This record gives sequence, structure tokens and C-alpha cells, in this order.
Amino acid sequence: MMKKVYVVGVGLTKVSRHYDKGLKELFAEAAWKAIEDAGNIMPKALVVGNETSSSLQDQDNLGAYLADYGGLGRIPAFKVEAACGSGGAAFYTGYALVASGLVDVVMVAGVEKLTDARSSVTTAALAKAADAEYEAFYGASFTSLNALLMHYYMKKYRVSHEEIAEWSVMMHENASKNPYAQLRFRVTKEQVVTSRIIAYPLRLLDASPISDGAAAVILASEDVAKKISDTPISIVGVGMATDKIYIAGRESLDRMEALILAAKQAFSMAKISPRDIDVVEVHDAFSILGLMSLEDLGFVEKGRAAKALNDGAFHPGDKPTANPSGGLKARGHPVGATGVYQVAEIAMQLRGDFPGVKVPSEVGLASNIGGAGTTITVAILRR
Amino acid sequence: MMKKVYVVGVGLTKVSRHYDKGLKELFAEAAWKAIEDAGNIMPKALVVGNETSSSLQDQDNLGAYLADYGGLGRIPAFKVEAACGSGGAAFYTGYALVASGLVDVVMVAGVEKLTDARSSVTTAALAKAADAEYEAFYGASFTSLNALLMHYYMKKYRVSHEEIAEWSVMMHENASKNPYAQLRFRVTKEQVVTSRIIAYPLRLLDASPISDGAAAVILASEDVAKKISDTPISIVGVGMATDKIYIAGRESLDRMEALILAAKQAFSMAKISPRDIDVVEVHDAFSILGLMSLEDLGFVEKGRAAKALNDGAFHPGDKPTANPSGGLKARGHPVGATGVYQVAEIAMQLRGDFPGVKVPSEVGLASNIGGAGTTITVAILRR
Repeated sequence: MMKKVYVVGVGLTKVSRHYDKGLKELFAEAAWKAIEDAGNIMPKALVVGNETSSSLQDQDNLGAYLADYGGLGRIPAFKVEAACGSGGAAFYTGYALVASGLVDVVMVAGVEKLTDARSSVTTAALAKAADAEYEAFYGASFTSLNALLMHYYMKKYRVSHEEIAEWSVMMHENASKNPYAQLRFRVTKEQVVTSRIIAYPLRLLDASPISDGAAAVILASEDVAKKISDTPISIVGVGMATDKIYIAGRESLDRMEALILAAKQAFSMAKISPRDIDVVEVHDAFSILGLMSLEDLGFVEKGRAAKALNDGAFHPGDKPTANPSGGLKARGHPVGATGVYQVAEIAMQLRGDFPGVKVPSEVGLASNIGGAGTTITVAILRR
Repeated sequence: MMKKVYVVGVGLTKVSRHYDKGLKELFAEAAWKAIEDAGNIMPKALVVGNETSSSLQDQDNLGAYLADYGGLGRIPAFKVEAACGSGGAAFYTGYALVASGLVDVVMVAGVEKLTDARSSVTTAALAKAADAEYEAFYGASFTSLNALLMHYYMKKYRVSHEEIAEWSVMMHENASKNPYAQLRFRVTKEQVVTSRIIAYPLRLLDASPISDGAAAVILASEDVAKKISDTPISIVGVGMATDKIYIAGRESLDRMEALILAAKQAFSMAKISPRDIDVVEVHDAFSILGLMSLEDLGFVEKGRAAKALNDGAFHPGDKPTANPSGGLKARGHPVGATGVYQVAEIAMQLRGDFPGVKVPSEVGLASNIGGAGTTITVAILRR
């Protein structure tokens, strides 16, 4: 029997190009918002999700760095790295620290600062999440890898770009109501399918932006959580799995085996099924990943997500509602922080205080991806 | 009441300049030795300690990368980074994964490949563990930072270089008997104090070498451990703490507050005191850190470690014996793997099958440091 773990506080910075803030300023803002939100309880350990601080800020030893500069004191602190899935992996780790009984109050934070460098340098730093020898060496970036996945999917399931474009339309619409979102303008299908080609068939408005941001959640044991709130948000399922890092080695390009496995673990632990989920935040670094995620999580048959979406599914009011935050596509994608944003957003939906599109929910799910489907975490939260 | 966690398998590569092996080859060798040592039980999750793969191999997403190339399958896998303390932090994380009940068999591995690059590039990569703005930007490297600590300590406690040199003499003597060690030659005090000056007063033979290597340990729950062995090694205490990353901000230069705190946690959890420890592996990236570690762990009064050492303390036969492996100084220091080497070596001492200097032991301790005293873990193991 595992100890119960609760989310007792959340804090976010706006996702943006924060040219006036560094890693430590972004972290401190999110961390202290989370501490205040948790009734000023201080964390006794810090787990940080981040991908690129070593490449873009020349800063390792990030746990101690942020614990000190963030004013958290001499607590245990370290970084967890799983590419764009770093935030989800940090959450998985923080969950284990509390569930083990080792630490009763843990801050899980994600922080990423991508706009310190020229965009070519940032793209190269992000490409370190691909296989250095078999992908990045040949010039593959995450844009080109996802273009391959998108092209294959469109051909195999006879899905048009117009149909996929509805994802971007919905994400920008949702983001327009989220004060933390980076791209708060609406777009039309016409604008999406005529936007600049980045890597055929993928166009600019199919892709998430380059973002800076930080998110923090405070996890606590049952004893501590019950002192802070009569109705803390409970973590009822977690799952994690991996797959081959180079996509050419995968069994299937249109199916994320790691997501299927991670979801199975999380649903089994929570003793529920996909139909019980009211709200999800999935990892749409590119629209195609959002659609494939909804399929691999079991919300819709493989190859049918775009069609269902165009029939009104996953929009606010439907069950589940997908990415009321605006998703990576329009809330923004501060890489190693994204997985923590997702969990914080789901926790706020369950509490009823998310300051954007509200989804009345009992149970929510967050799913975070590192690499093109390589390292995937799933977390299920319950009110 | 926390669930018990055991070390049920260990695997090491020789520490060396492995010009013929990359990250994945080193990892696979250590991983499969550990699996075989654990009666061929397969891990269900992987936690990897590494510092520089992002800088020197352009490879992030290291958990999935190694799980796949190492043949471990689609298990949960991620990297933990805490500079040179990455291995110890990975062990702390792996402990929590098992103690939580989330995963009953976890591999904790450390791997580092420093010799792919020119030594100036490697030194710059390692300096990312210092404060990028307040230390590395001004040209500080770990050699110069440790030279400052050493100079301060020598002046304050009136300790001579000849006295400190006994540490290197003992480490090389111990390493000469360890088949996994990198520097298996003996040195004299005379050679140490006349070796090339690297950063005054620190000389070449006060420093650990540039190393490649990988280490793996398999941790298991009580149910699993008892099936593998009648006498598995028990993890009875773990601790972790941090301090300011830039050493100018510390309360004291000759006292590692993070080590004092981490040790307090681990001893309290194990319900024992320093006098109960038979064997220790401490983090002597530079001799001064080895001596300070013995003091801050409570084995000898502050400022007295070098004198005690020269009176015969800490040598094989004394309690505790320090670094029978040869330590970072002479076994070698494959940065993010070092903390895992230490735990594996202590486990082998307790089992009685360490293939070098043997220390008959009931209880052993490993202590790993990231940065110049910034991020520190302590683990206590019992037979």
C-alpha cells in the first residue's frame, strides 16, 4: 500500500520571451507563488526539471543553484533531465520522494530559458534530445522529425492539413483566455494551412513557440496536506515509459508505445479508465503530437483524432476537454517546465480556480513527452 | 515506517581513458555486470547520474538513450544531474523509487565520458558546475576553487603540504591493489609535493585524474531482495543537502555545511553514529576535499584530519578505513559515475568480495559531492 501524495500549491510565471529575466528570477517567481498558494509551507526538498541550462546558460548543478538563489535554504535539490519531458520526470521523482516517506513536503519545479541565445543555437541545443549519432549529426531537428511523423500519419490515415489545423485553431482560442499563455491571439484554419512552411508538411502555426517560463507545484504527504486544506488535490496515478530515441528504430511511427505503457501504469494505479477523465493537458509541441497523444491515451481510435476534433470533440464542454490552457501550441513550451505547467493547470482545473477556460472536473490527466515520443510520463489527479 | 531497500547487484567498468568506448558501451558493460551479479533480475526503472553528456557528447534524454541501447527495454528512465554529485543524487532518487513502492527493482547507474574532448573543453564543461555568472565567467575552474579551499585550510589550521600529501600516498597505495582503478602506481610524499603546480598551492598529485567509466547498482524491495540472496546489503540511511554554489557566499570555507546536514540525516535515519562506521568512501576530487569530508562526517576534529592521517588513522586496519578503492584521487573520477562507484564499492566491502584492499565491515558509508561542497549526498549501508 503506497502512501498518498497531494498537490497543495501551484505557481506559474507567464510563458513569454522574458528577455529581462534569467533562470533564477523565473524560478523564484513561480516557487514563491507556489509556497504562498500552499499556505506558506516551506518545501524540504527541490526537484527541478530543465533541459538546456547546461547548453544555453553554461549552468549545471541547477538544483543547488535554484534552491539557494530562490531562498529555499540548504535543502536536498537536484535536476532531472528527460529532454522536453524533464518536468514530467521531475514530477514522477517528486511523487516518489513523498510517497517513500523520505521527505514530506517537496517542490517540483520546471524552468527553462531559451531566449538567451540565437535561434539556431537554441534549435541545436534542443536537438540534443534526439540521437546525436543517428539523427542530430545528420541535421535532424525536432521540427524535421515531427514533420516526418506528421507526413506519415496524414498519408496512412488520409487526414488533411485542414483537419489537423483545427487543433491550432482550438489551442489559440483556449490560450486567448489564459493569462499565463504566450500566444493569446486567435488563428483561422486558413491562416494555419497557409502559414510559412518550416519542414514539409509542417507549417509555422503547427508548431509551439520558443518560450521562457517556470512552474512549481508543492507535493505533500497526507498529514501535511490535511493541515493545509480540507480538499487537497490527490495524485492517484503516475506512469512513465521510454522508447528508442531514434525514430527510425521504432516499431511504429504513428503510435507512441511509451505513452501507451505510461498510461497503462497510471490508469491501473488510479483504478480508472480513459472515460473517467474530465480534462487533459497533452504534449502538443506540434499539432500531430497532440492528436497522437489523445489516441494513444485511449480517448479516440487510432487515426480518428483529427476527424473527432473537427466534429467538436475535445473542445470546451466535451469530455475530456483537451488543453484548456492552450497547450504547448499556444500557452507556450518552456521545455523542461512544460510538464510542471501541465500538472499545475490540471490541479487548478480540479480546484476550480484556473484563470482561463474552466472545465468542471473530478479527474484530470497530464501527459508530457521528451524527444519525438521517447520519454513519456502520465499523471492522474483527482479532486 | 519506510519500506526497506537493498542493494542486490553491482557492476563496474575499469576507470580509465576509454578512447575506444562511448557512453553507451561503458553503460552497457556496467549494467549487465550488475544484472548478472543480481542473479539476472531485470530492472524495471533506470536512474542515470551524469554531468557532461550534454556538453561533450551533445546527448540529452540520456535515460531513454541508455535504457534502449543498453537493452533494458521501455522502462521508466531519466537522468539526474547534480554536477560531480550526480551519481549520489541518482542513488538518492533510486532509493526513493523503491522505498515508495512505485518500482520494486531499480537500476541506478552513473556514466561519464570525459576524454572525447580536448582537456580545455572538458575543464570548461566541468566548470558549469560552478556559478556561471560569479565564478566560471571570471575564469574559475574546479582546480582553482579547490586551491583556494586548500590554501585557506592550510593557513587556518597550520597544516603543511607534506602532511596533506599523505592522502595521495595512501590513495595510490590503495588503488595499486584495485583492478578497477585508473592510477595504479605508488607515489611518495616527495613526489607529491614536488609535482607540477596546477593552481597554487595545489599540485598535480593532489588532484583526481580525467576519467571515463560507468557503474551500476541494482536496488530492490525486501520481497525481491530476499529471493535473490539470504544476505542482501541493506540501505539503512540516506541524506542530502545543498549550499551556496559560489564559494565566496559560504558561511565557512573549511566546513561543508551541506555534508554536515546530509550526514546528520543519514546517521539519524540509520540510528547510528560515526564511531559505528567501519569503512568509508569519501569524495576526494582533491586531497583537501577528502580530509575535510572526514572531519565534516564526524570522524575527526576539524583541522585535525591530516595530522591523524599521518599518525596512521584512516589507513587499512584503522576504523574507519577511508577509500580502500583508492578514492577519486587514484581509482579515478568519472564525474557523474563516481557516486555510484562509491556505493558499489561499499556494498562489495560489506559482502567481503571487493577485489582490492579488503576491510572487514558491518557498516559502511559513501559520500559524494557536486561542485566545491555544493550538493552532497550520504548513504549508509549495512551487511
